[in-house]
Amino acid sequence: MSSSFGTLYTVSTFGESHCAGVGAVVDGVPPRMALSEQDIQVQLDRRRPGQSKLATDRDEADRVRILSGVENGLTLGSPIALLVANKDQRPGDYGTMSNIPRPSHADYTYRAKYGIHASSGGGRSSARETIGRVAAGAIAEKFLLENYGIEIVAWVSSVGAVDAPELAMESISRRQVDASEVRCPDAAAAEKMTEEILAARRAQDSVGGIISCVCRNLPAGLGEPAFDRLEARLAQAMLSIPASKGFEIGSGFSGARMRGSLHNDPFVMKGDRLGTLSNRSGGVQGGISNGEPVYFRVAFKPPATIGQEQQTVDYQGQPVTLAAKGRHDPAVVARAVPIVETMAALVLADLALIQRMRGGA
Amino acid sequence: MSSSFGTLYTVSTFGESHCAGVGAVVDGVPPRMALSEQDIQVQLDRRRPGQSKLATDRDEADRVRILSGVENGLTLGSPIALLVANKDQRPGDYGTMSNIPRPSHADYTYRAKYGIHASSGGGRSSARETIGRVAAGAIAEKFLLENYGIEIVAWVSSVGAVDAPELAMESISRRQVDASEVRCPDAAAAEKMTEEILAARRAQDSVGGIISCVCRNLPAGLGEPAFDRLEARLAQAMLSIPASKGFEIGSGFSGARMRGSLHNDPFVMKGDRLGTLSNRSGGVQGGISNGEPVYFRVAFKPPATIGQEQQTVDYQGQPVTLAAKGRHDPAVVARAVPIVETMAALVLADLALIQRMRGGA
Amino acid sequence: MSSSFGTLYTVSTFGESHCAGVGAVVDGVPPRMALSEQDIQVQLDRRRPGQSKLATDRDEADRVRILSGVENGLTLGSPIALLVANKDQRPGDYGTMSNIPRPSHADYTYRAKYGIHASSGGGRSSARETIGRVAAGAIAEKFLLENYGIEIVAWVSSVGAVDAPELAMESISRRQVDASEVRCPDAAAAEKMTEEILAARRAQDSVGGIISCVCRNLPAGLGEPAFDRLEARLAQAMLSIPASKGFEIGSGFSGARMRGSLHNDPFVMKGDRLGTLSNRSGGVQGGISNGEPVYFRVAFKPPATIGQEQQTVDYQGQPVTLAAKGRHDPAVVARAVPIVETMAALVLADLALIQRMRGGA
Amino acid sequence: MSSSFGTLYTVSTFGESHCAGVGAVVDGVPPRMALSEQDIQVQLDRRRPGQSKLATDRDEADRVRILSGVENGLTLGSPIALLVANKDQRPGDYGTMSNIPRPSHADYTYRAKYGIHASSGGGRSSARETIGRVAAGAIAEKFLLENYGIEIVAWVSSVGAVDAPELAMESISRRQVDASEVRCPDAAAAEKMTEEILAARRAQDSVGGIISCVCRNLPAGLGEPAFDRLEARLAQAMLSIPASKGFEIGSGFSGARMRGSLHNDPFVMKGDRLGTLSNRSGGVQGGISNGEPVYFRVAFKPPATIGQEQQTVDYQGQPVTLAAKGRHDPAVVARAVPIVETMAALVLADLALIQRMRGGA
Repeated sequence: MSSSFGTLYTVSTFGESHCAGVGAVVDGVPPRMALSEQDIQVQLDRRRPGQSKLATDRDEADRVRILSGVENGLTLGSPIALLVANKDQRPGDYGTMSNIPRPSHADYTYRAKYGIHASSGGGRSSARETIGRVAAGAIAEKFLLENYGIEIVAWVSSVGAVDAPELAMESISRRQVDASEVRCPDAAAAEKMTEEILAARRAQDSVGGIISCVCRNLPAGLGEPAFDRLEARLAQAMLSIPASKGFEIGSGFSGARMRGSLHNDPFVMKGDRLGTLSNRSGGVQGGISNGEPVYFRVAFKPPATIGQEQQTVDYQGQPVTLAAKGRHDPAVVARAVPIVETMAALVLADLALIQRMRGGA
Repeated sequence: MSSSFGTLYTVSTFGESHCAGVGAVVDGVPPRMALSEQDIQVQLDRRRPGQSKLATDRDEADRVRILSGVENGLTLGSPIALLVANKDQRPGDYGTMSNIPRPSHADYTYRAKYGIHASSGGGRSSARETIGRVAAGAIAEKFLLENYGIEIVAWVSSVGAVDAPELAMESISRRQVDASEVRCPDAAAAEKMTEEILAARRAQDSVGGIISCVCRNLPAGLGEPAFDRLEARLAQAMLSIPASKGFEIGSGFSGARMRGSLHNDPFVMKGDRLGTLSNRSGGVQGGISNGEPVYFRVAFKPPATIGQEQQTVDYQGQPVTLAAKGRHDPAVVARAVPIVETMAALVLADLALIQRMRGGA
Repeated sequence: MSSSFGTLYTVSTFGESHCAGVGAVVDGVPPRMALSEQDIQVQLDRRRPGQSKLATDRDEADRVRILSGVENGLTLGSPIALLVANKDQRPGDYGTMSNIPRPSHADYTYRAKYGIHASSGGGRSSARETIGRVAAGAIAEKFLLENYGIEIVAWVSSVGAVDAPELAMESISRRQVDASEVRCPDAAAAEKMTEEILAARRAQDSVGGIISCVCRNLPAGLGEPAFDRLEARLAQAMLSIPASKGFEIGSGFSGARMRGSLHNDPFVMKGDRLGTLSNRSGGVQGGISNGEPVYFRVAFKPPATIGQEQQTVDYQGQPVTLAAKGRHDPAVVARAVPIVETMAALVLADLALIQRMRGGA
Repeated sequence: MSSSFGTLYTVSTFGESHCAGVGAVVDGVPPRMALSEQDIQVQLDRRRPGQSKLATDRDEADRVRILSGVENGLTLGSPIALLVANKDQRPGDYGTMSNIPRPSHADYTYRAKYGIHASSGGGRSSARETIGRVAAGAIAEKFLLENYGIEIVAWVSSVGAVDAPELAMESISRRQVDASEVRCPDAAAAEKMTEEILAARRAQDSVGGIISCVCRNLPAGLGEPAFDRLEARLAQAMLSIPASKGFEIGSGFSGARMRGSLHNDPFVMKGDRLGTLSNRSGGVQGGISNGEPVYFRVAFKPPATIGQEQQTVDYQGQPVTLAAKGRHDPAVVARAVPIVETMAALVLADLALIQRMRGGA
């Protein structure tokens, strides 16, 4: 239930860090669509850690297997099961910390909720849970591109105190994004962000950041008032990503400081369709796409696991000093870029299929 | 479907501005709970316009009727239907604008989606749609208070450029909030906010704002990973409110600028339970409540309908000058306070009922 | 939740016998469809008791009001709320029986489940609950007829020991069905059935029966394997009707006695489409419609409330003799005919909308 | 979506005959429950073909693997992914029949629905799809037995024209059922049924049958009116099994022929609880369990694939003679026994978890 998402394009994810594998079952993928494992692997490779000096060097090959729903390279319209084997399937690696709930981690709440937790502590709150989403969303991206021309591009727009300048939403591409390891398409900002992350690493600390995302070429009409408004579904999707703390669409929080006369987006003709001169609405009005680019931002807190010593208490309330062993990602935003993109794709694919019942695009 | 919300505590809303009425069917309310129409009316009265000099003076009595599910003052465990009659049931009042899609309003997108729209233009994106939610959420609030001691208090923390100072989340009360018409419990800030709104009105303009909300006394364990994480459901709920543009929980967007060593919330003993020294997590870790106050903020854009002239185009693309007739709310944040509270209550009631299946609180 | 049905065409019903009213909220009705209250009233009138000498003479006018979702005679695509006021809104009429659970009635189980029950005893198991379904289903019927030419006709094929002969599924019409009060289109059988019902009434007893139903002109392709197979959804729909005890499609239970060589339906050309020579499949293969008439039967037990004395015990286990006061329907099958039809329509409308996402009919 | 079942105890199945594997993701299994692959394998072994002279001799080992959700022998409360590898993963084996839709098989309807079909023809209508259900349901059975003492036992009560005598529902056990290969606990009937099946095989034909099922020790209170009545959910579950054509609960179709005075189940004291003297209700009143055994029957048509020649047409409408190659099961009822049991378990586990939110058993 809670591990499923979507009404017509539905995804059910499974898996923890040390079980046999992680993955997803995707139901609702239209039939007769060409689909290979490589189509999915591309995004999985982008979310994989150990790709650069900025990230942990744990090697996670994360090869996806399509278990069902595809035959002779074509989707059948039946559920597509996706599996990525876990390399380390021995539970218990985190055992030494098991009596100390890590600050701002999920150890304590999982124990409170389930009365048990996986040896990795955070259980389903682990970053590995997102593998199933990314795999399922990569299929959604292919469907959206081929059927609507929809392009989804996310990038890192802030790391700690470093902000990227505003970028051209109409043209930004994944190639530009991937030009830097930190996934910021502005070279100067990327350099500063890299330094910010390396500084955090040197301090055995971590640092948060913000991801921006644009979805282009949506037809007008996607989004289902009242509770499945496009921005509401996007907000749920984004806040379901581990470590996310905020979501804003279009003008977002800064729009709350504006007057209506400045905030409103006047209509103009754009070719043969109505468009808007500005896009403070972020491509959505009344919960429904208006044909302009959908634009939103997601805030991620700094990773909770740090090498620095932390003063906290154990489950019995005894004061302890905690310092995480091993190497840990000082920042997750670069890896979270494909997660944001694929979660957006899951939302859009679902809303697009629903709109089809009205004879819509 | 899209007008329903929740898994066990479910709400299905209905109604537009000029039909017979608006309301909701609430399923999943536990049986044997005392419930009267007055219990619900309190929050409806708080969301009603025309209460002050800051708002439109349209008189909307908005008396709720319980149509089913309650007998002799007790809930039966069956669906509770709630109805608020519309005073003005004549479609067509907005007819003069019908060939001009109002900028940043839902006229255009509803037409694109449905091929038809209600005479009020925005159809279900109208503020009246929220009446059903508020009524349904008021019942959820009662359930949460009586069964868990949960208190939900929201207030206006920004209007335009005016910010309230940080407030004591542990103690803030609805009485304090309602002390000013603008619903900011800080008297000095409230005065400035009032002036900001009156200035916007004088300019025939509108102004946005931010609502803060705290939910106290949650048991640890609410929230269902992966997609129904507490913050994910709250984010969907808040972004489904008309005019909302952003959501952040705990440290939110400012947390994205911090280092982990400063952001992490160390554990301490609080009486006989584990608590945290700080609360940058906003009461949630790994998508599950940790027993600390759940704290979040919601951004609202300035209302799209303004008296000032706007340059735009009609559906045929012809340039027109639009100026809304009549009186319009220059700000909606004060009225949105009970909407935020009741939407939060809908989320919490649903997650609390789900957690009960685990023998939880 | 449990009072909602459907994925895209969803219905949420509400109401008990003695509350203000009963009804439903229907979400997913396509926009721009002509719809009046009279379109719905037709089927409500057919399910209303007190229409003949065979039924109770309680007068229930049961006029439906459309509260939302329709403007100027056209659907808006938004939720349609439907309300039928209850005439007798005083709880307590059944008070004299309140300490005795009526045999084979829902008094005992509602109390076991909810710890409370409506004064009418059976609460939501009351026949009045079906009003919301019939109203919602009447809209579905209109959608199916106008968009696909789908016709749904049900009739009484058995009352007690009296069976109607096999009828021509291809041509049977509601006019033929309504020619007799017992709603059996075979005049001779209808006469015997009437006598069977009158005999039961004279004995202060009740009698069960079977309803047959045919759905014609379905496109091939409706039904969603695995769990939403067409016959699975129909079975759920039919067994959710009060007093139903069985469902069979096509050959049904008699098919279980046959050999495959006799049971299989060979394909033949029918005009420009493939059809089948026989129809033991009942229009469904592998859970998906094949274009042949969908044909099924529903068994209804005799009404539990009878005037005869019954030996039973009260809630404390004390032996009592129970005899229902007042007049009670000796048979419900005639009134259940429109319920069966409209529930079938709810299933088909939902599956048709889902199939549209595949570009299907 | 359509491949998922349940509200709190949810199952999402996947897989066709010739893909990598079949299985399911089960969400909602309570945490801290002991669970091994062998717990699940027991029921998978019972549904496996090739166990006896009565069935096909294809060897399908069907070993289940738990991929996630269980650690150190205990459930974590997270989704449990279950996988059974397909032995023959080469698509195309049924290719010779690909231009001829097999009569009463799903070839034609899958093509009509999806515009493509798996090489096995029936795609998800294949018997192999049920593996995921059986695995998921075996976990549900364990939960129900350990938490409520609920026992579910199904058996073959008819094969073709051969009926078993009525059996003692209170005591029948799986050991008794498995005493004969045909899974009829009455030895004399079992012998006749075996002969019926062998006769069909000799004639290169197939034969249908009926499965009866009893669920004992349910607490009163399970089942959610209106649409998730216990019998409605069971009916959906049973009619979602391939080849099923009918469902009846308690008195079923024969109850439709009775009078109320004979059909009603009078209450009596049974120890310290109310029970009923007879059980024509089948353990359910008003859609809610009453504490008596839940008893139902499911009709299965004869398998569509037979060795005998059949006159039919191909997709172009050309007359052809079809005779299935290879060996085919002349009857499926014996193998369907564990499918019926586990599907019932899925329904009951879900309804039991839902009732827990009311503080119920």
